[in-house]
Amino acid sequence: MFGFRYFTPTKVVFGKETEYQVADLIREFGGTKVLIHYGGGSVIRSGLLSRVTKVLDEAGIAYITLGGAVPNPHLTLVYEGIELCRKEGVDFLLAVGGGSAIDSAKAIGYGLANEGDVWDFYDYKRKAKGCMPLGVILTIAATGSEMSDSSVITKEEGWVKRGYSSDYSRPKFAILNPELTMTLPDYQTACGCTDIMMHTMERYFTNGGNMEITDALAEGLLRTVKEQAKILAKDPNNYNARAEVMWAGSLAHNGLTGCGNDGGDWMTHKLEHELGGLYDVAHGAGLAAIWGSWARYVYKNCLPRFKRFAINVMGVANEGTDEEIALRGIEAVEDFYREIKMPTNLRELGVKATEEDLVLMAHKCAVGVGGEMGLARKLNEQDMLAIYRMSM
Amino acid sequence: MFGFRYFTPTKVVFGKETEYQVADLIREFGGTKVLIHYGGGSVIRSGLLSRVTKVLDEAGIAYITLGGAVPNPHLTLVYEGIELCRKEGVDFLLAVGGGSAIDSAKAIGYGLANEGDVWDFYDYKRKAKGCMPLGVILTIAATGSEMSDSSVITKEEGWVKRGYSSDYSRPKFAILNPELTMTLPDYQTACGCTDIMMHTMERYFTNGGNMEITDALAEGLLRTVKEQAKILAKDPNNYNARAEVMWAGSLAHNGLTGCGNDGGDWMTHKLEHELGGLYDVAHGAGLAAIWGSWARYVYKNCLPRFKRFAINVMGVANEGTDEEIALRGIEAVEDFYREIKMPTNLRELGVKATEEDLVLMAHKCAVGVGGEMGLARKLNEQDMLAIYRMSM
Repeated sequence: MFGFRYFTPTKVVFGKETEYQVADLIREFGGTKVLIHYGGGSVIRSGLLSRVTKVLDEAGIAYITLGGAVPNPHLTLVYEGIELCRKEGVDFLLAVGGGSAIDSAKAIGYGLANEGDVWDFYDYKRKAKGCMPLGVILTIAATGSEMSDSSVITKEEGWVKRGYSSDYSRPKFAILNPELTMTLPDYQTACGCTDIMMHTMERYFTNGGNMEITDALAEGLLRTVKEQAKILAKDPNNYNARAEVMWAGSLAHNGLTGCGNDGGDWMTHKLEHELGGLYDVAHGAGLAAIWGSWARYVYKNCLPRFKRFAINVMGVANEGTDEEIALRGIEAVEDFYREIKMPTNLRELGVKATEEDLVLMAHKCAVGVGGEMGLARKLNEQDMLAIYRMSM
Repeated sequence: MFGFRYFTPTKVVFGKETEYQVADLIREFGGTKVLIHYGGGSVIRSGLLSRVTKVLDEAGIAYITLGGAVPNPHLTLVYEGIELCRKEGVDFLLAVGGGSAIDSAKAIGYGLANEGDVWDFYDYKRKAKGCMPLGVILTIAATGSEMSDSSVITKEEGWVKRGYSSDYSRPKFAILNPELTMTLPDYQTACGCTDIMMHTMERYFTNGGNMEITDALAEGLLRTVKEQAKILAKDPNNYNARAEVMWAGSLAHNGLTGCGNDGGDWMTHKLEHELGGLYDVAHGAGLAAIWGSWARYVYKNCLPRFKRFAINVMGVANEGTDEEIALRGIEAVEDFYREIKMPTNLRELGVKATEEDLVLMAHKCAVGVGGEMGLARKLNEQDMLAIYRMSM
């Protein structure tokens, strides 16, 4: 068991019609001039954006808007947002959308609160000393960015995708109305459930030093998302299932499911980041396409955890050798992915990678993690290449 | 399922020797002149207080000390603390101890940040508009006050015990070093485990509208504390078990295990508060002495939850009628209490109550809750008296 810090200051306001509380929340945290940052047209089409601006108008809170945050959000838009906010005297950021809008807003916030090039933080050159306060109205349950300390930005030049984490960027508030996620395409819903589970699974597969209560919470969360994802695959407008998944998404990545662990493995995410940088695939689907190959490559080095996971999360019977149980657990995850229409390899993901592509991704991934990384099993560039090949 | 707010801003620093970080944490939250508030002599005898003052001395942070916070902390000492802090220009409160020291510090904090009599808040006469910032070094895992919004104070005149809750009083930081709890008498450790479980059980036994993920987390937490409490009954110096229980204590009462529920039942706590007011018994032991009688009185009105609890928490076989399963669950809790040497009725608690005492407690309890209260089953004064009689 390891010592840990746990810091989740985000005020969560959860339930139907909670977006109408946005003006009060902005005021509570001192905002007087707001940048509303969003992604594509869905928040316009759904009417959410006009509901939000109406609430702000009625409350007399000034705002400007900036759309265009794409999945794997781009650095160019971040620069644009920083310049716009400086010019307009913005003192509070409101992200309306999913992880893309939130991560883009976090990067804008770093840019506003620090001198110099904001990419320096994502490029590990220096550490941020602050971030402009931000709030969130969430429309996609997936990344957990609404309570997390992390954000991921892609620099278009060379398609370099990098994450940066600091407590400064934890949102001041997160408005979670499950109804806002009901207009999502089924594929995006399934991607979100995969991402949510993976945030907890990354923290779960480690080699010793775990905390029993953290494991119990993690397993409870994973079982819940697994069951609710299957419900949503058949009944996307099920409010209770939407709510379960939405709250799970925040808890899966706010730190709760890693307390007392040694930080987590995170190699599935790193391997997927290269996919996302090169092919612009949906993050959750990319994780699903990689995970089975990663798991089969590492499980013998982390057998007690894979066995426990198989039994306590996937409901595998405690019969046979540990290896057999562990493998049945991995198969059960892949069966689950198929049931919610997620890919289990690159081909199903729609990625036709050449051997050269795999070599390039493995190289970029190894460079990105500083040579080697992983707790379930430490992986170097050759290991990464082997996993990419298995995932074809 | 209900909407909810979730707000747990307390920065948790967990692990061995974390008390040495206290000066940095006080400074991070702006403290320059500190009141160190503690209970009895145990923090002096253990050397903790002198370690803390040494760290503050070395960091150049000024402080004064005030001991004497007793279990069911008294209003008189709160008044004394307020006066002392005003005179000395204190701007940060540091509670070193368990729930008594923390709750007493919270009340002092309300007194310092508001005009008029601090008892008004506990007497439901008006609402606080702030609380002086406070931090915690925890030495007893039990009340969860280190992350919670609540505090309970006893007014000596008439021995009136009342709670007050507001987000203002959530501690800025909580230093959780499991080693600091190792000097506790076994009885106090068991009382703490009982209190921790009860904070989650109070939220669990409701009639419908629950959230699956909250139930899964609650059940995982309860199973963990149950098993670790049994380990500690035999091996009090087991660091891992101490750590599991300590972290569970914070999570059990910071709001996590109530998200999406309708607020919880809380009648066992209310019934125990009258015991605590009249006999000054240990809170956890009082809860254990009352719970079985409460459960037997209400379980038929809340059968699905008692059945689920029996199976998922207490490990009762899913065989027989729902009532049989529920009753076996209640019996299993009482068996668990006996195993960790907690009382299961007032006699074992050491309370020799007369019929007049029971009538008085039921009356005070009913007045305290405004006539009637409870979600598993709504209880009036006659119901409360019946439960007190059952618990003899």
